Amino acid sequence: MDKGIFITVEGPDGSGKTTIIQMLAEKLKKEGYEIVATREPGGIEIAEQIRQVILDPKNTAMDSRTEALLYAAARRQHLAEKVRPALEKGQIVLCDRFVDSSLAYQGHARGLGIDEVYSINQFAIESMMPKMTLYFDVAPEVGLERINENKGREVNRLDLEKLEFHQKVREGYLMLAERFQDRIVKIDASKELETVYEQAEMKIKELLNR
Amino acid sequence: MDKGIFITVEGPDGSGKTTIIQMLAEKLKKEGYEIVATREPGGIEIAEQIRQVILDPKNTAMDSRTEALLYAAARRQHLAEKVRPALEKGQIVLCDRFVDSSLAYQGHARGLGIDEVYSINQFAIESMMPKMTLYFDVAPEVGLERINENKGREVNRLDLEKLEFHQKVREGYLMLAERFQDRIVKIDASKELETVYEQAEMKIKELLNR
Repeated sequence: MDKGIFITVEGPDGSGKTTIIQMLAEKLKKEGYEIVATREPGGIEIAEQIRQVILDPKNTAMDSRTEALLYAAARRQHLAEKVRPALEKGQIVLCDRFVDSSLAYQGHARGLGIDEVYSINQFAIESMMPKMTLYFDVAPEVGLERINENKGREVNRLDLEKLEFHQKVREGYLMLAERFQDRIVKIDASKELETVYEQAEMKIKELLNR
Repeated sequence: MDKGIFITVEGPDGSGKTTIIQMLAEKLKKEGYEIVATREPGGIEIAEQIRQVILDPKNTAMDSRTEALLYAAARRQHLAEKVRPALEKGQIVLCDRFVDSSLAYQGHARGLGIDEVYSINQFAIESMMPKMTLYFDVAPEVGLERINENKGREVNRLDLEKLEFHQKVREGYLMLAERFQDRIVKIDASKELETVYEQAEMKIKELLNR
């Protein structure tokens, strides 16, 4: 089980994590590493079905605890069917968002409590926590601006309403980075993409060469 | 929240619990009590969707922890949308199966561990445990025989294969009855239906007249 190396990447949308995971996967593959780059639900049929329930726009009555349990269920299935088999084969798994997302978004920002959300996630993942988590830290204003630049529009009222929520998310991530110092590496994602990438690559190389 | 009274009924299929819940509901309504008789997913749209994922025959890759999390998610939604509002109105809720089913079937019989399954269910229900749980205790052989009588067929190989599992379920329920003596009332469900009903009614009346 422990032959492979499990690495997760966390941070808000607009922090560059998806792009950088792709760059890292390409680079490491060229160097001969076996890489699986994934994100939940990762094409796993049961996890996709669960995600459909979470995202169904008709489900306005969804309770936030129901939602947290459904995310944990989808996470479990993705882990069991995709992440664990890859690790057992000795591969390196780069996963875009994992437990820390639930802790920051639902545990802290939605107010369910980090410890409570952590406990259901412990049930979901057993002890399969990542060896290292790269947290791309960036002010929500910057992240939202980048997203909006992509879509060629200005920040609107809706984005501003969300700002407070995204500030809570960042606050949650920073609490986690403080609490899990041995696992979480904070990277300043306000910098240029190339600089963020270099930082991420360096941290992964340090881990691989340990 | 605590104005109503929450009562759950537990036991294997063939223990008579569904029939007896109906009888109890009718009797108590006649006596002027406001009764909600329900069972998960109880017609709650989101809980029905979750149940479809659990029961989809194509989902053979379903991990048992995923399943336990999905049951907890459906339970949460049913509780939030149906049980809690009824209790807030001061009604008596009779629920066919609840947390103890997950503890006996998945925690004990499937081997996930009673404490572990209990912890994710605590997240799902917060502190909304039933005031009283009637556990209809019957040997699996008797329960299965009753089910088969209904269908007019003999016990087959499949039923026999399942027997060991059902024995584990009963073992789990008995452990729970021992552990939660203040909440769980064990009723001998090997007796005639009328006798079991009388026992159940007496226990509920004791609770209502406290």
